[in-house]
Amino acid sequence: MLRVAQIAPNIFPVPPDHHGGTERVVHDLSTALRSLGVELTLFGSSDSATDLPRVGDYPSLAALERQYGRVAPGVPAALDALQLEALRERLDAFDIIHCHGEFAHAALLGERRRHSLTTIHWRVDELDRALFFQGFPDLPVAAISAAQAAGIPESNRAGIVHHGIDRTRYALRVTPDDHVAFVGRMTDQKRPDVAIRVARAAGLPIRLGGTIDVGNPDYFDARVRPLLGPDATYLGPVDDARKDELLGGARALLFPIDWPEPFGLVMIEAMACGTPVVAWDRGSVPEIVEDGVTGFIVSTEAEAVAALARIGQLDRAGIRRRFEARFTAERMARDYLALYHRLLAA
Amino acid sequence: MLRVAQIAPNIFPVPPDHHGGTERVVHDLSTALRSLGVELTLFGSSDSATDLPRVGDYPSLAALERQYGRVAPGVPAALDALQLEALRERLDAFDIIHCHGEFAHAALLGERRRHSLTTIHWRVDELDRALFFQGFPDLPVAAISAAQAAGIPESNRAGIVHHGIDRTRYALRVTPDDHVAFVGRMTDQKRPDVAIRVARAAGLPIRLGGTIDVGNPDYFDARVRPLLGPDATYLGPVDDARKDELLGGARALLFPIDWPEPFGLVMIEAMACGTPVVAWDRGSVPEIVEDGVTGFIVSTEAEAVAALARIGQLDRAGIRRRFEARFTAERMARDYLALYHRLLAA
Repeated sequence: MLRVAQIAPNIFPVPPDHHGGTERVVHDLSTALRSLGVELTLFGSSDSATDLPRVGDYPSLAALERQYGRVAPGVPAALDALQLEALRERLDAFDIIHCHGEFAHAALLGERRRHSLTTIHWRVDELDRALFFQGFPDLPVAAISAAQAAGIPESNRAGIVHHGIDRTRYALRVTPDDHVAFVGRMTDQKRPDVAIRVARAAGLPIRLGGTIDVGNPDYFDARVRPLLGPDATYLGPVDDARKDELLGGARALLFPIDWPEPFGLVMIEAMACGTPVVAWDRGSVPEIVEDGVTGFIVSTEAEAVAALARIGQLDRAGIRRRFEARFTAERMARDYLALYHRLLAA
Repeated sequence: MLRVAQIAPNIFPVPPDHHGGTERVVHDLSTALRSLGVELTLFGSSDSATDLPRVGDYPSLAALERQYGRVAPGVPAALDALQLEALRERLDAFDIIHCHGEFAHAALLGERRRHSLTTIHWRVDELDRALFFQGFPDLPVAAISAAQAAGIPESNRAGIVHHGIDRTRYALRVTPDDHVAFVGRMTDQKRPDVAIRVARAAGLPIRLGGTIDVGNPDYFDARVRPLLGPDATYLGPVDDARKDELLGGARALLFPIDWPEPFGLVMIEAMACGTPVVAWDRGSVPEIVEDGVTGFIVSTEAEAVAALARIGQLDRAGIRRRFEARFTAERMARDYLALYHRLLAA
């Protein structure tokens, strides 16, 4: 039986309470790998609520912040070091070590790098990754989209695996309510302000869910809050159940990203509800959204307004079928399993 | 011959251009250990200007910021991972590995921890260190003051070694000018605003040297800049030559710290010039300043003003002699060497 370790970040528990896309993917991947017969061990924080075999004696950053308020800036690095030590003590117990965090694991793994896989859940076009790739040309890296892969040096590229989610988490809603939805962190990468303007121009109410970064509330206060009103309501952070309601009830998800989005999990969460996605043509979007089938790909606010006008032409049951064909956790797990076997055979 | 690796931080070159107390200590320690016959290898950034045998192909954060402006927040962690990899490749080449950075090295060292030493150049009373000590009870840690040692668990305590500096860097100035001096980062830990108020109340001009943190200029703008005037001048960052002039010419160094200072390098730099220190009674201060001999230890601004009134009673040549007896790099190197031998014998 293949013995696989999944090394989750230490920011949120696995699975996360609401936001925390990386921890969500690690959980769904681990669960699906186990269903496929893999002997799976999850390295994740002690406040994780999961049935998976788990290693990790320390709470997540989120749990520590709930307990202590703002904590010393070195806490994430300390938690990472403690997790690396737990991994070091067990290195011999695994055939494949799959890391979802940053940087230091590459040095710790040493000769075992060739039997490891690293998924980077962030943009890869900045200086930190450039330095990292330069120093670890033998580290196998899985891209989460072709767009992200383009920024990864060839020697590191182990393959492309699109994210997937548990197929039972969200249910198809054939008949939505009137509103459109925005779900995501309240940042200038995700542009909730643009979403509100587009919905208003299309004459549709919008509901927004997502977290305001405690460390940086300025963007929300300056750019988003002034736009809120009876037709544009902010719901705060949303858990799975509320997200199902928000996305399933939406005529469309607006995804007006303003950065090279490496994947964009909320797009496939919407599709799982049968909800089409109106997404800006950046990063992974052309790989995830099938234009005219599961949504519309646009480049301007005017195009987005026009797309909302013809959103009823799309078949919501058909969108759910595309989700089931392309973006389940099971498909993701099979893709990664194939990668693991390729690494072991090389 | 004892083979020792010194692992410097990746923030500044070794030695640093102006501020960067840790990189300064690592350089002076390495140089002095070499004079004592140690086979010394420095792990430090590629922009380091030193004759020491050095490992490290990547520039410091400071050099990257000069080149690119503000860089991605992951850069320090990426540089640390690259340095850890360079160390991992050479682990067998050293009898003792002496680390001056944070966290992840403890996992990388693994079984070699018992032949390693970690110096923490920061406060140890916050949550990040508490977690770290809990997870690595077998990591030998050298305290830089008895005050700092009190916050380190007994199982980690390897000894106390006060910092030292190259004895030739600063020269005794028997007759100072009229001003008093402040040297340090412009932060609310160091309180340049208090220094200005005290000097003004004592009727003495004050000159301030030190860096304004680019990431956080608010403190300087809000609390310090309004206090500047003909009798209180800000010189900007100061290199060794300007610091020698500023400190040597000062009747006293004001050190009005407002945090548990683990050491406070500028106090011994002043003493090297024969300049007495008026320092607040926190952290390491009672260990460094000999009250009535090398300066005065105070608790309030009023006490500091009173201390400045009798500062002329102190013998500047005598202060320099206390520096030479207690705070040279050679003394520091001998102390660390004794620690290394104790670790190897254990």
